[in-house]
Amino acid sequence: MQAPTRAIIIHAAQDLRVEDQEAAAPGPGQVALRIRQGGICGSDLHYYQHGGFGVVRVRQPMVLGHEIAGEVAALGAGVAGLAVGDRVAVNPSLPCGTCRYCLAGQAQHCLDMRFYGSAMRMPHVHGGFRQHLVCEASQAVQLPADMDLRRAAFAEPLSVCLHAARQAGPMMGARVLITGAGPIGMLCLLVARHAGARQVVMTDLAPKPLALARALGADAAHDLRAAPEALAPYGAEKGTFDVVFECAGSAVALAGAIGAARPGATIVQVGLGGDATVPLNAIVAKEITLRGTFRFHEEFALAVDILARGAIDPMPLLTEVVPMEQAVAAFDLAADRSRAMKVQLAF
Amino acid sequence: MQAPTRAIIIHAAQDLRVEDQEAAAPGPGQVALRIRQGGICGSDLHYYQHGGFGVVRVRQPMVLGHEIAGEVAALGAGVAGLAVGDRVAVNPSLPCGTCRYCLAGQAQHCLDMRFYGSAMRMPHVHGGFRQHLVCEASQAVQLPADMDLRRAAFAEPLSVCLHAARQAGPMMGARVLITGAGPIGMLCLLVARHAGARQVVMTDLAPKPLALARALGADAAHDLRAAPEALAPYGAEKGTFDVVFECAGSAVALAGAIGAARPGATIVQVGLGGDATVPLNAIVAKEITLRGTFRFHEEFALAVDILARGAIDPMPLLTEVVPMEQAVAAFDLAADRSRAMKVQLAF
Amino acid sequence: MQAPTRAIIIHAAQDLRVEDQEAAAPGPGQVALRIRQGGICGSDLHYYQHGGFGVVRVRQPMVLGHEIAGEVAALGAGVAGLAVGDRVAVNPSLPCGTCRYCLAGQAQHCLDMRFYGSAMRMPHVHGGFRQHLVCEASQAVQLPADMDLRRAAFAEPLSVCLHAARQAGPMMGARVLITGAGPIGMLCLLVARHAGARQVVMTDLAPKPLALARALGADAAHDLRAAPEALAPYGAEKGTFDVVFECAGSAVALAGAIGAARPGATIVQVGLGGDATVPLNAIVAKEITLRGTFRFHEEFALAVDILARGAIDPMPLLTEVVPMEQAVAAFDLAADRSRAMKVQLAF
Amino acid sequence: MQAPTRAIIIHAAQDLRVEDQEAAAPGPGQVALRIRQGGICGSDLHYYQHGGFGVVRVRQPMVLGHEIAGEVAALGAGVAGLAVGDRVAVNPSLPCGTCRYCLAGQAQHCLDMRFYGSAMRMPHVHGGFRQHLVCEASQAVQLPADMDLRRAAFAEPLSVCLHAARQAGPMMGARVLITGAGPIGMLCLLVARHAGARQVVMTDLAPKPLALARALGADAAHDLRAAPEALAPYGAEKGTFDVVFECAGSAVALAGAIGAARPGATIVQVGLGGDATVPLNAIVAKEITLRGTFRFHEEFALAVDILARGAIDPMPLLTEVVPMEQAVAAFDLAADRSRAMKVQLAF
Repeated sequence: MQAPTRAIIIHAAQDLRVEDQEAAAPGPGQVALRIRQGGICGSDLHYYQHGGFGVVRVRQPMVLGHEIAGEVAALGAGVAGLAVGDRVAVNPSLPCGTCRYCLAGQAQHCLDMRFYGSAMRMPHVHGGFRQHLVCEASQAVQLPADMDLRRAAFAEPLSVCLHAARQAGPMMGARVLITGAGPIGMLCLLVARHAGARQVVMTDLAPKPLALARALGADAAHDLRAAPEALAPYGAEKGTFDVVFECAGSAVALAGAIGAARPGATIVQVGLGGDATVPLNAIVAKEITLRGTFRFHEEFALAVDILARGAIDPMPLLTEVVPMEQAVAAFDLAADRSRAMKVQLAF
Repeated sequence: MQAPTRAIIIHAAQDLRVEDQEAAAPGPGQVALRIRQGGICGSDLHYYQHGGFGVVRVRQPMVLGHEIAGEVAALGAGVAGLAVGDRVAVNPSLPCGTCRYCLAGQAQHCLDMRFYGSAMRMPHVHGGFRQHLVCEASQAVQLPADMDLRRAAFAEPLSVCLHAARQAGPMMGARVLITGAGPIGMLCLLVARHAGARQVVMTDLAPKPLALARALGADAAHDLRAAPEALAPYGAEKGTFDVVFECAGSAVALAGAIGAARPGATIVQVGLGGDATVPLNAIVAKEITLRGTFRFHEEFALAVDILARGAIDPMPLLTEVVPMEQAVAAFDLAADRSRAMKVQLAF
Repeated sequence: MQAPTRAIIIHAAQDLRVEDQEAAAPGPGQVALRIRQGGICGSDLHYYQHGGFGVVRVRQPMVLGHEIAGEVAALGAGVAGLAVGDRVAVNPSLPCGTCRYCLAGQAQHCLDMRFYGSAMRMPHVHGGFRQHLVCEASQAVQLPADMDLRRAAFAEPLSVCLHAARQAGPMMGARVLITGAGPIGMLCLLVARHAGARQVVMTDLAPKPLALARALGADAAHDLRAAPEALAPYGAEKGTFDVVFECAGSAVALAGAIGAARPGATIVQVGLGGDATVPLNAIVAKEITLRGTFRFHEEFALAVDILARGAIDPMPLLTEVVPMEQAVAAFDLAADRSRAMKVQLAF
Repeated sequence: MQAPTRAIIIHAAQDLRVEDQEAAAPGPGQVALRIRQGGICGSDLHYYQHGGFGVVRVRQPMVLGHEIAGEVAALGAGVAGLAVGDRVAVNPSLPCGTCRYCLAGQAQHCLDMRFYGSAMRMPHVHGGFRQHLVCEASQAVQLPADMDLRRAAFAEPLSVCLHAARQAGPMMGARVLITGAGPIGMLCLLVARHAGARQVVMTDLAPKPLALARALGADAAHDLRAAPEALAPYGAEKGTFDVVFECAGSAVALAGAIGAARPGATIVQVGLGGDATVPLNAIVAKEITLRGTFRFHEEFALAVDILARGAIDPMPLLTEVVPMEQAVAAFDLAADRSRAMKVQLAF
């Protein structure tokens, strides 16, 4: 039996606690991990601030977190290819592998998905903000021995953006607009550059993240609060952008993007925004493709590979690393866009 | 010089007149046509009922009509491949052929488009509801000598639906939902069957067109006024339909379609509907593709070919043929969905 | 214990026997079938005539056959959705469901495929030319109660052609060339028509199947032995055909198809033809896509649906039904293109 | 009238001369250029070594060259957007702009193409290896004022590779094999990296270009003369590569690529290789897509943009710049793979 270990557990809106938890032993095909690093995601913040999002509510205590990395602590029976001490990033997606979506290569639409730190099903699926975690060996993706685990903890949000990029089609030579300069918008910028975009323009309503966007390679970054008409010139001759990543989850941002997109453009809806008023006539007249993107699947391994190779450097997005015992302070910091881009916890 | 000929001219909302017009002679590369048959389209009705749609307003008298067929009356200099007396359907789309969209194979987005019977530009581009019409020879698509011109006058709306179908991707084996059982929805049904759809379901708010839909081969046709929850079973296991043609131009219809579509489905927005409230979260979570479709281009020749071969039979959609002098009565009939599907004028 | 039943077993080239076999009982998740009808495929003929094809050789006695239909005779434990007496078509493809290709929706490339009547692996996977067959319940696709089993036995070759058609992309409005008018070429013709092809041209080296092609709806059918230059006019202005199904497995046919295909066309290589001399420069200059197609997967259910609905009628292809005890005569007939298109066995 | 200027003219195989030419004045819509830099391409070498390639023969003296850059010397009437002294790269492709391929966005298949330095039509279309050149203003793509013209002269071969990359589909995350490490293969390597390829492997039969490939970012570079089986490990589990650029124009290279490609992979045939023996059965069984790529069109502007931004650096490929009067020596150097990668001429 192992000693109790610590975990970050949401009980209800504004009720986040760091508590003891029994550490389990890995079953066959599983590994036990010593989690070291975890990034706070927007959905973690929703649970903390509002107790959920949309119709999803926290109805029982749930460990949060799905942007995690650590080391292998123990191997279950039959696990090959991993050794104790190996550094790993954890894929928080655990599809069933047998439903029709899984067998069609669309595991993100699995009819029996278990995604870490999600209250979508009962009982909830616990997340990874804990010192000790048992997961399927297939979820633990090996890292180079010397890889910085702060970097590795970006694999999950990077996967989201890689999957979004695949919804956009080929991006080499494309003119790209990204609306919303949070961590996901910023990683979409890095992915667009990685995929050979010709021009990347970002918009937001706050100057600070836009300054970072410029520093990270955006060709232009417009503050639509200060200059609401900044996208108008891009609408000339029916529009400029081949691809849009709508990361703000905002009807206003989407309408602006439709106006600035060229006929036949693809707008990838990344941000969640509830019901939104959309100018359907413009979608028709410009034959715009508006396509949702949801999580990721095989892109997780690609994200790890990209980070390990250094082909994308997420470190400028990292605002601060906070010890797990100060989780509440970390969440408060992460929720403050004027101070934070990405906040990670150290376990 | 020719004698005055008759044309159907919109002056303002509710002010539709049949008037004399000078018949012009064809210039080089042009042909003069004796128009015989013309179908009344929804946009003709909008000009008649409301004086326009969206921001487009009739600001000067304009000949209406763009679903037209007739015979060659005279050839301009240098025209080959057509002879006087040939039956033709008229492609009402006249792109510039030199702008970047034309040269990219996207002529429907031409920066200098002249589309018949459209008040989008000033001066307006006159339409084809007139006995004599001069057009570019390339717009006059030859028909078999014995082809019924009523059938040929369906080439234009059929082109719209063929273009919409191309936005949907391959339809062989697809489960297809069509929302809105007007003439366009009905032709989408015939196109879906033509393209090998496995299942076609239609919805509307009126029983009469749904009965016609069943007669034309719909596997099911649901009256959502009588049974608002009729689509619910199709939403099981995340959804059924691979392809949706949203022909109602309605936010309610679109939301229902999103619920009934499977993850990864394509919803082609055919109907114009102004600003609409759209459930963005469902588009994201199901990775729906919502894609606009606008007019057509090379599909016109295909439509003529399909009609000439009899591969699609549009005649069950034809409610009545009305002499052009009774244009007002014809428009009133066409506007009454309880009585009419497609109304044509005889010139 | 059940009585011995009869099966058609290949022992070596030219050594085909009808022999007794022990009938097995279905295990959990399995069904026992009384096979009634089986179509002889080109690969069955290769085993019979040459003892295999390419590097694949019959190395132990193997039941042939994979185009089969029958009735449910007994249900294994846990089987739902089927009842004794139900008519079924049998999907001869049994992928592992767990390898990376299966989980990517590419089950036809399964790393551990068991395909009926194939000597690709050792021990060979027995086929379905036998009175009693035990298979996984998922392989038995239910038919309407009154469906003709001769028609149902076309589900497998139709699946091959539906899968080939999916490699071609959208076919609505396409000009299609089919080289090789055997059963697969003929079903490709029916599929092309089903998917809305605008024009279908067939070629072969024998007049009889070409006459059948014309009767089944080919716009033209050229005997390239009688008229070797028959495709030349299609090569004008860089080519005519948008899609080619190369069903002959012949370098000459492929070269002719490349010449007649338009720039950017897709040539689906259906026929197996070993090493072939290919005009690479023409593929480059015309940016031809040459794409292989291999078996099928989810198309089997679609094929059954199409046949059950009568959307495609394969019966004109059926030359004769031969009692299973006369298997050798049936194989000899099937191998004679001057007499036979498709030969089926009755069990 | 201007003074005579110098041009590099092919008269026949092995008969290359530097001769005087009359400098013409630009007509309306044209510009006169002072060419400064020109890269020697494989097709230039074919004219020099063999008097042509395939069925194309030099039948009259022709100025060679199509990888050229220089400065604007004079403007014809009506030319806007360019000024005397501007640095430009010259797009050697001059499609008619009116044929059906041009209007379908496939200008590289223009029925009346004029491509610089090509003997495909009579009279031949002269190329750009000359001090003074008059071209359409639309062919002269403006460069930054300080851009190195040696770099700009890579725009044309880079365009070829960008177009090839577009035939491959999205490359982000792809495993890429490039066969043939000449200038085109090398630029394909740089393009694959630019487009986010996950892994790039190169093969050739000579060690020197492979060393350069490694220096330019190839993950592996195999000498197939030294190690003919080097690709075998990539063939495990049905194959590794998602995308192949076959730049060798070699049946052996293509066969090796087919073996190493995963099921469903795309092989872009870039190199011209005449008739080649191709393993059709492997293309079928692995459902390989073999797709030709021919020249380029709108990619030229993208190539200039990429080079101007420095997103791709072609300078490591530049072996030497030779004065134009030593053209024969320059061609001899360019033809010697053991000494040269890309040789440019200074005018």
